[in-house]
Amino acid sequence: MIRTRSIELETRGKGLTEITGEVREIVRESGIRTGLCSVFVLHTSASLLITENADPSARQDVEGWFERLAPESDPHYTHVLEGPDDMPSHLRSAVTRTSETIHVDDGDLTLGTWQGLFLFEHRRHPHLRRLRVRVMGELE
Amino acid sequence: MIRTRSIELETRGKGLTEITGEVREIVRESGIRTGLCSVFVLHTSASLLITENADPSARQDVEGWFERLAPESDPHYTHVLEGPDDMPSHLRSAVTRTSETIHVDDGDLTLGTWQGLFLFEHRRHPHLRRLRVRVMGELE
Amino acid sequence: MIRTRSIELETRGKGLTEITGEVREIVRESGIRTGLCSVFVLHTSASLLITENADPSARQDVEGWFERLAPESDPHYTHVLEGPDDMPSHLRSAVTRTSETIHVDDGDLTLGTWQGLFLFEHRRHPHLRRLRVRVMGELE
Repeated sequence: MIRTRSIELETRGKGLTEITGEVREIVRESGIRTGLCSVFVLHTSASLLITENADPSARQDVEGWFERLAPESDPHYTHVLEGPDDMPSHLRSAVTRTSETIHVDDGDLTLGTWQGLFLFEHRRHPHLRRLRVRVMGELE
Repeated sequence: MIRTRSIELETRGKGLTEITGEVREIVRESGIRTGLCSVFVLHTSASLLITENADPSARQDVEGWFERLAPESDPHYTHVLEGPDDMPSHLRSAVTRTSETIHVDDGDLTLGTWQGLFLFEHRRHPHLRRLRVRVMGELE
Repeated sequence: MIRTRSIELETRGKGLTEITGEVREIVRESGIRTGLCSVFVLHTSASLLITENADPSARQDVEGWFERLAPESDPHYTHVLEGPDDMPSHLRSAVTRTSETIHVDDGDLTLGTWQGLFLFEHRRHPHLRRLRVRVMGELE
Protein backbone atom coordinates (compact mmCIF):
# COMPACT_ATOMS: atom_id res chain seq x y z
CA MET A 1 0.00 0.00 0.00
CA ILE A 2 1.37 3.42 -1.00
CA ARG A 3 0.06 6.82 0.10
CA THR A 4 1.56 10.16 -0.95
CA ARG A 5 1.01 13.75 0.04
CA SER A 6 2.78 17.02 -0.74
CA ILE A 7 3.68 19.71 1.78
CA GLU A 8 4.14 23.32 0.77
CA LEU A 9 5.88 25.49 3.30
CA GLU A 10 6.66 29.19 3.22
CA THR A 11 9.96 29.65 5.05
CA ARG A 12 11.03 32.93 6.70
CA GLY A 13 14.61 32.79 5.51
CA LYS A 14 17.51 30.84 7.01
CA GLY A 15 16.76 28.39 9.76
CA LEU A 16 15.15 25.17 10.94
CA THR A 17 11.37 24.71 10.84
CA GLU A 18 9.99 21.62 12.54
CA ILE A 19 7.69 19.56 10.31
CA THR A 20 7.29 16.47 12.51
CA GLY A 21 3.64 17.32 13.14
CA GLU A 22 2.74 17.74 9.46
CA VAL A 23 4.43 14.48 8.48
CA ARG A 24 2.89 12.63 11.43
CA GLU A 25 -0.54 13.82 10.35
CA ILE A 26 0.01 12.48 6.82
CA VAL A 27 1.12 9.12 8.21
CA ARG A 28 -1.95 8.87 10.44
CA GLU A 29 -4.30 9.77 7.60
CA SER A 30 -2.69 7.18 5.32
CA GLY A 31 -4.11 4.34 7.39
CA ILE A 32 -0.83 2.47 7.01
CA ARG A 33 0.11 0.76 10.28
CA THR A 34 3.59 -0.63 9.57
CA GLY A 35 6.11 0.49 6.98
CA LEU A 36 8.40 3.29 5.91
CA CYS A 37 7.81 7.00 5.48
CA SER A 38 10.05 8.66 2.90
CA VAL A 39 10.26 12.46 2.99
CA PHE A 40 11.90 14.22 0.03
CA VAL A 41 12.59 17.94 -0.43
CA LEU A 42 12.45 19.11 -4.06
CA HIS A 43 15.18 21.77 -3.73
CA THR A 44 18.97 22.07 -3.60
CA SER A 45 19.11 25.10 -1.28
CA ALA A 46 16.88 23.71 1.47
CA SER A 47 17.26 20.32 3.12
CA LEU A 48 16.03 17.93 5.81
CA LEU A 49 17.47 17.26 9.23
CA ILE A 50 16.48 15.11 12.18
CA THR A 51 17.81 16.79 15.30
CA GLU A 52 17.03 17.73 18.92
CA ASN A 53 13.59 19.34 19.12
CA ALA A 54 13.34 20.12 22.82
CA ASP A 55 15.73 22.99 23.48
CA PRO A 56 15.66 25.96 21.05
CA SER A 57 19.30 26.73 21.92
CA ALA A 58 20.38 23.45 20.26
CA ARG A 59 18.60 24.48 17.07
CA GLN A 60 20.24 27.89 17.23
CA ASP A 61 23.68 26.35 17.60
CA VAL A 62 23.03 24.01 14.66
CA GLU A 63 22.13 27.02 12.51
CA GLY A 64 25.16 28.98 13.68
CA TRP A 65 27.57 26.12 13.08
CA PHE A 66 26.41 25.57 9.49
CA GLU A 67 26.77 29.32 8.96
CA ARG A 68 30.44 28.99 9.89
CA LEU A 69 30.96 25.66 8.09
CA ALA A 70 29.88 27.10 4.74
CA PRO A 71 30.06 30.88 5.18
CA GLU A 72 28.63 33.40 2.73
CA SER A 73 31.88 35.32 2.58
CA ASP A 74 34.10 32.59 1.13
CA PRO A 75 36.12 34.18 -1.70
CA HIS A 76 36.56 30.76 -3.33
CA TYR A 77 32.97 30.68 -4.65
CA THR A 78 32.54 31.28 -8.37
CA HIS A 79 28.79 30.54 -8.42
CA VAL A 80 27.71 33.95 -7.12
CA LEU A 81 25.17 35.23 -9.67
CA GLU A 82 22.19 34.35 -7.47
CA GLY A 83 23.60 36.11 -4.42
CA PRO A 84 26.15 35.38 -1.67
CA ASP A 85 23.76 33.02 0.13
CA ASP A 86 23.18 30.73 -2.86
CA MET A 87 26.38 28.71 -3.01
CA PRO A 88 26.54 28.15 0.79
CA SER A 89 22.95 26.88 0.48
CA HIS A 90 24.00 24.10 -1.88
CA LEU A 91 26.91 23.19 0.41
CA ARG A 92 24.80 23.05 3.55
CA SER A 93 22.25 20.95 1.66
CA ALA A 94 25.05 18.64 0.49
CA VAL A 95 26.01 17.69 4.05
CA THR A 96 22.48 17.41 5.43
CA ARG A 97 19.67 15.43 3.74
CA THR A 98 17.53 15.66 0.60
CA SER A 99 15.54 12.61 1.70
CA GLU A 100 14.90 11.00 5.06
CA THR A 101 13.39 7.60 5.82
CA ILE A 102 11.50 7.08 9.08
CA HIS A 103 9.84 3.89 10.31
CA VAL A 104 6.06 3.76 10.71
CA ASP A 105 4.64 1.64 13.52
CA ASP A 106 1.10 1.46 14.88
CA GLY A 107 0.15 4.04 12.26
CA ASP A 108 2.60 6.63 13.55
CA LEU A 109 6.18 7.84 13.00
CA THR A 110 8.74 6.08 15.19
CA LEU A 111 11.12 8.71 16.54
CA GLY A 112 13.32 8.91 19.60
CA THR A 113 12.24 11.03 22.56
CA TRP A 114 14.13 14.13 21.46
CA GLN A 115 14.05 13.66 17.71
CA GLY A 116 12.23 16.08 15.45
CA LEU A 117 12.21 16.33 11.64
CA PHE A 118 13.08 19.78 10.35
CA LEU A 119 13.11 21.61 7.06
CA PHE A 120 16.38 23.52 6.91
CA GLU A 121 16.08 26.69 4.84
CA HIS A 122 19.49 27.91 3.67
CA ARG A 123 18.51 31.04 1.72
CA ARG A 124 18.25 34.47 3.33
CA HIS A 125 14.84 35.31 1.98
CA PRO A 126 11.52 33.53 2.45
CA HIS A 127 10.92 30.73 -0.07
CA LEU A 128 8.00 28.49 -0.88
CA ARG A 129 9.37 24.98 -0.36
CA ARG A 130 7.82 21.79 -1.66
CA LEU A 131 8.23 18.41 0.01
CA ARG A 132 6.80 14.99 -0.75
CA VAL A 133 5.81 12.49 1.90
CA ARG A 134 5.36 8.87 0.82
CA VAL A 135 4.15 6.12 3.16
CA MET A 136 4.64 2.49 2.05
CA GLY A 137 3.56 -0.49 4.07
CA GLU A 138 0.72 -2.59 5.42
CA LEU A 139 -2.73 -1.47 6.52
CA GLU A 140 -2.91 -4.04 9.27
CA MET B 1 6.63 -8.73 3.74
CA ILE B 2 7.94 -6.62 6.64
CA ARG B 3 10.19 -7.78 9.49
CA THR B 4 11.45 -5.56 12.30
CA ARG B 5 13.91 -5.97 15.11
CA SER B 6 15.44 -3.62 17.66
CA ILE B 7 19.10 -3.45 18.62
CA GLU B 8 20.25 -2.15 21.98
CA LEU B 9 23.90 -1.32 22.22
CA GLU B 10 25.93 -0.07 25.16
CA THR B 11 28.60 2.24 23.74
CA ARG B 12 31.90 2.98 25.51
CA GLY B 13 31.91 6.67 24.78
CA LYS B 14 32.96 8.45 21.59
CA GLY B 15 33.74 6.33 18.57
CA LEU B 16 32.60 3.97 15.84
CA THR B 17 31.21 0.52 16.66
CA GLU B 18 30.63 -1.82 13.75
CA ILE B 19 27.11 -3.28 13.65
CA THR B 20 27.23 -4.95 10.22
CA GLY B 21 27.12 -8.41 11.81
CA GLU B 22 24.11 -7.66 14.01
CA VAL B 23 22.13 -6.18 11.11
CA ARG B 24 23.16 -9.01 8.77
CA GLU B 25 21.89 -11.55 11.32
CA ILE B 26 18.51 -9.79 11.49
CA VAL B 27 18.26 -9.77 7.69
CA ARG B 28 19.06 -13.49 7.50
CA GLU B 29 16.53 -14.37 10.21
CA SER B 30 13.84 -12.33 8.45
CA GLY B 31 13.67 -14.84 5.61
CA ILE B 32 13.34 -11.94 3.15
CA ARG B 33 15.40 -12.66 0.02
CA THR B 34 15.11 -9.40 -1.97
CA GLY B 35 14.30 -5.93 -0.70
CA LEU B 36 15.51 -3.05 1.42
CA CYS B 37 16.87 -2.91 4.95
CA SER B 38 16.27 0.38 6.75
CA VAL B 39 18.31 1.05 9.87
CA PHE B 40 17.27 3.95 12.10
CA VAL B 41 18.96 5.27 15.24
CA LEU B 42 16.57 6.77 17.82
CA HIS B 43 18.98 9.44 19.08
CA THR B 44 20.33 12.86 18.12
CA SER B 45 23.77 12.47 19.67
CA ALA B 46 24.67 9.15 18.03
CA SER B 47 24.39 8.38 14.32
CA LEU B 48 25.02 5.86 11.55
CA LEU B 49 27.89 5.70 9.08
CA ILE B 50 28.91 3.33 6.32
CA THR B 51 32.68 3.51 6.03
CA GLU B 52 35.87 1.47 5.56
CA ASN B 53 35.86 -1.52 7.92
CA ALA B 54 39.21 -3.12 7.10
CA ASP B 55 41.88 -0.82 8.52
CA PRO B 56 41.38 0.48 12.10
CA SER B 57 43.51 3.53 11.24
CA ALA B 58 40.81 4.73 8.81
CA ARG B 59 38.24 4.54 11.58
CA GLN B 60 40.57 6.41 13.91
CA ASP B 61 41.06 9.17 11.37
CA VAL B 62 37.31 9.46 10.82
CA GLU B 63 36.83 9.90 14.58
CA GLY B 64 39.65 12.46 14.80
CA TRP B 65 38.39 14.48 11.86
CA PHE B 66 34.86 14.80 13.28
CA GLU B 67 36.44 15.85 16.57
CA ARG B 68 38.06 18.77 14.75
CA LEU B 69 35.06 19.50 12.51
CA ALA B 70 32.76 20.08 15.50
CA PRO B 71 35.08 20.56 18.47
CA GLU B 72 33.96 20.59 22.08
CA SER B 73 35.73 23.84 22.79
CA ASP B 74 33.82 26.07 20.36
CA PRO B 75 32.91 29.25 22.29
CA HIS B 76 29.96 29.86 19.92
CA TYR B 77 27.84 27.12 21.51
CA THR B 78 24.98 28.31 23.73
CA HIS B 79 23.50 24.83 24.29
CA VAL B 80 25.96 23.79 26.99
CA LEU B 81 23.81 22.67 29.93
CA GLU B 82 24.29 18.99 29.17
CA GLY B 83 28.08 19.27 28.97
CA PRO B 84 30.68 20.37 26.41
CA ASP B 85 30.27 17.17 24.39
CA ASP B 86 26.50 17.54 23.87
CA MET B 87 26.28 20.22 21.19
CA PRO B 88 29.13 18.77 19.08
CA SER B 89 27.21 15.48 19.25
CA HIS B 90 24.19 17.00 17.55
CA LEU B 91 26.41 18.60 14.89
CA ARG B 92 28.30 15.39 14.12
CA SER B 93 24.97 13.57 13.93
CA ALA B 94 23.65 16.26 11.58
CA VAL B 95 26.33 15.59 8.97
CA THR B 96 26.29 11.80 9.26
CA ARG B 97 23.13 9.66 9.17
CA THR B 98 20.08 9.02 11.34
CA SER B 99 18.86 6.37 8.89
CA GLU B 100 20.59 4.22 6.31
CA THR B 101 19.05 2.08 3.58
CA ILE B 102 20.90 -1.01 2.35
CA HIS B 103 19.80 -3.44 -0.36
CA VAL B 104 18.97 -7.03 0.54
CA ASP B 105 19.78 -9.74 -2.03
CA ASP B 106 19.78 -13.52 -1.63
CA GLY B 107 18.69 -12.97 1.96
CA ASP B 108 21.76 -10.93 2.86
CA LEU B 109 22.93 -7.31 3.01
CA THR B 110 24.55 -6.10 -0.21
CA LEU B 111 27.67 -4.14 0.71
CA GLY B 112 30.90 -3.34 -1.10
CA THR B 113 34.06 -5.24 -0.19
CA TRP B 114 35.29 -2.66 2.31
CA GLN B 115 31.97 -1.30 3.52
CA GLY B 116 30.84 -1.70 7.10
CA LEU B 117 27.87 -0.16 8.92
CA PHE B 118 28.81 1.62 12.13
CA LEU B 119 27.06 3.21 15.06
CA PHE B 120 28.84 6.49 15.73
CA GLU B 121 28.69 7.47 19.40
CA HIS B 122 29.32 11.19 19.87
CA ARG B 123 29.04 11.51 23.66
CA ARG B 124 32.03 11.10 25.99
CA HIS B 125 30.37 8.67 28.35
CA PRO B 126 28.89 5.21 27.66
CA HIS B 127 25.26 5.32 26.53
CA LEU B 128 22.63 2.70 25.87
CA ARG B 129 21.66 3.26 22.23
CA ARG B 130 18.54 1.95 20.53
CA LEU B 131 18.32 1.22 16.83
CA ARG B 132 15.57 -0.23 14.68
CA VAL B 133 16.16 -2.54 11.75
CA ARG B 134 13.33 -3.01 9.26
CA VAL B 135 13.51 -5.41 6.32
CA MET B 136 10.90 -5.00 3.55
CA GLY B 137 10.72 -7.20 0.49
CA GLU B 138 9.94 -10.59 -0.97
CA LEU B 139 10.39 -14.00 0.63
CA GLU B 140 11.29 -15.64 -2.66
CA MET C 1 7.17 -5.38 -7.33
CA ILE C 2 10.95 -5.07 -7.17
CA ARG C 3 13.31 -4.33 -10.07
CA THR C 4 17.09 -4.03 -9.75
CA ARG C 5 19.87 -2.98 -12.06
CA SER C 6 23.59 -2.31 -11.61
CA ILE C 7 25.49 0.65 -13.01
CA GLU C 8 29.22 0.50 -13.69
CA LEU C 9 30.88 3.83 -14.21
CA GLU C 10 34.49 4.64 -15.03
CA THR C 11 35.27 7.95 -13.30
CA ARG C 12 38.04 10.31 -14.43
CA GLY C 13 39.32 11.09 -10.96
CA LYS C 14 37.91 13.59 -8.45
CA GLY C 15 34.61 15.22 -9.23
CA LEU C 16 30.87 14.98 -9.74
CA THR C 17 29.39 12.92 -12.57
CA GLU C 18 25.67 13.25 -13.17
CA ILE C 19 23.84 9.92 -13.27
CA THR C 20 20.23 11.18 -13.28
CA GLY C 21 19.75 9.98 -16.87
CA GLU C 22 21.04 6.46 -16.23
CA VAL C 23 18.88 6.03 -13.12
CA ARG C 24 15.84 7.53 -14.87
CA GLU C 25 16.26 5.02 -17.69
CA ILE C 26 16.32 2.13 -15.21
CA VAL C 27 13.16 3.42 -13.54
CA ARG C 28 11.36 3.73 -16.87
CA GLU C 29 12.38 0.25 -17.96
CA SER C 30 11.21 -1.22 -14.64
CA GLY C 31 7.60 -0.55 -15.53
CA ILE C 32 6.95 0.52 -11.94
CA ARG C 33 4.66 3.55 -11.86
CA THR C 34 4.61 4.51 -8.18
CA GLY C 35 7.16 3.74 -5.50
CA LEU C 36 10.68 4.36 -4.31
CA CYS C 37 14.02 4.20 -6.11
CA SER C 38 16.97 3.36 -3.87
CA VAL C 39 20.44 4.04 -5.26
CA PHE C 40 23.41 2.58 -3.40
CA VAL C 41 27.13 3.04 -4.12
CA LEU C 42 29.29 0.03 -3.18
CA HIS C 43 32.37 2.06 -2.18
CA THR C 44 33.70 4.13 0.72
CA SER C 45 35.75 6.58 -1.35
CA ALA C 46 32.99 7.60 -3.76
CA SER C 47 29.51 8.75 -2.78
CA LEU C 48 26.16 10.10 -3.94
CA LEU C 49 24.90 13.65 -3.95
CA ILE C 50 21.74 15.39 -5.12
CA THR C 51 22.67 18.94 -6.02
CA GLU C 52 22.18 21.74 -8.58
CA ASN C 53 22.59 20.40 -12.10
CA ALA C 54 22.06 23.53 -14.18
CA ASP C 55 25.15 25.69 -13.66
CA PRO C 56 28.57 23.96 -13.88
CA SER C 57 30.03 26.65 -11.59
CA ALA C 58 27.89 25.36 -8.70
CA ARG C 59 29.31 21.87 -9.22
CA GLN C 60 32.82 23.29 -9.34
CA ASP C 61 32.29 25.13 -6.06
CA VAL C 62 30.91 21.99 -4.42
CA GLU C 63 34.05 20.11 -5.47
CA GLY C 64 36.34 22.91 -4.28
CA TRP C 65 34.62 23.22 -0.92
CA PHE C 66 34.92 19.51 -0.14
CA GLU C 67 38.58 19.74 -1.12
CA ARG C 68 39.03 22.35 1.63
CA LEU C 69 36.73 20.63 4.14
CA ALA C 70 38.78 17.42 4.08
CA PRO C 71 42.11 18.39 2.51
CA GLU C 72 44.74 15.93 1.38
CA SER C 73 47.47 17.70 3.30
CA ASP C 74 46.08 17.23 6.81
CA PRO C 75 48.99 16.05 8.99
CA HIS C 76 46.52 14.41 11.41
CA TYR C 77 45.83 11.47 9.08
CA THR C 78 47.43 8.15 10.05
CA HIS C 79 45.69 6.11 7.33
CA VAL C 80 48.05 7.13 4.52
CA LEU C 81 49.27 3.85 3.01
CA GLU C 82 46.94 4.10 0.02
CA GLY C 83 47.99 7.64 -0.82
CA PRO C 84 47.22 11.17 0.38
CA ASP C 85 43.81 11.18 -1.36
CA ASP C 86 42.52 8.03 0.35
CA MET C 87 41.64 9.27 3.84
CA PRO C 88 40.00 12.50 2.59
CA SER C 89 37.92 10.25 0.31
CA HIS C 90 36.43 8.41 3.27
CA LEU C 91 35.73 11.72 5.05
CA ARG C 92 34.01 13.30 2.06
CA SER C 93 31.98 10.12 1.63
CA ALA C 94 31.05 10.23 5.32
CA VAL C 95 29.36 13.61 5.01
CA THR C 96 27.66 12.97 1.67
CA ARG C 97 25.59 9.84 0.89
CA THR C 98 26.18 6.12 0.38
CA SER C 99 22.49 5.65 -0.47
CA GLU C 100 19.80 7.98 -1.76
CA THR C 101 16.06 7.39 -1.95
CA ILE C 102 14.02 9.14 -4.64
CA HIS C 103 10.27 8.91 -5.24
CA VAL C 104 8.95 7.32 -8.42
CA ASP C 105 5.73 8.73 -9.91
CA ASP C 106 4.14 8.07 -13.28
CA GLY C 107 7.01 5.70 -13.99
CA ASP C 108 9.66 8.38 -13.59
CA LEU C 109 11.95 9.88 -10.92
CA THR C 110 10.41 12.81 -9.06
CA LEU C 111 13.05 15.52 -8.74
CA GLY C 112 12.91 19.28 -8.31
CA THR C 113 13.58 21.53 -11.30
CA TRP C 114 17.29 21.97 -10.55
CA GLN C 115 18.00 18.66 -8.85
CA GLY C 116 20.37 16.14 -10.36
CA LEU C 117 21.79 12.93 -8.87
CA PHE C 118 25.57 12.72 -9.00
CA LEU C 119 28.26 10.17 -8.33
CA PHE C 120 30.98 11.95 -6.36
CA GLU C 121 34.41 10.45 -7.03
CA HIS C 122 36.86 11.35 -4.26
CA ARG C 123 40.02 9.61 -5.48
CA ARG C 124 42.55 11.32 -7.76
CA HIS C 125 42.77 8.54 -10.30
CA PRO C 126 40.04 7.02 -12.50
CA HIS C 127 38.13 4.22 -10.80
CA LEU C 128 35.50 1.73 -11.94
CA ARG C 129 32.56 2.41 -9.62
CA ARG C 130 29.63 0.09 -9.04
CA LEU C 131 26.17 1.28 -8.04
CA ARG C 132 22.91 -0.55 -7.52
CA VAL C 133 19.52 0.86 -8.41
CA ARG C 134 16.45 -0.77 -6.89
CA VAL C 135 12.89 0.24 -7.74
CA MET C 136 10.10 -0.93 -5.41
CA GLY C 137 6.45 -0.15 -5.96
CA GLU C 138 3.31 -0.73 -7.98
CA LEU C 139 3.03 -1.40 -11.69
CA GLU C 140 -0.24 0.52 -11.98
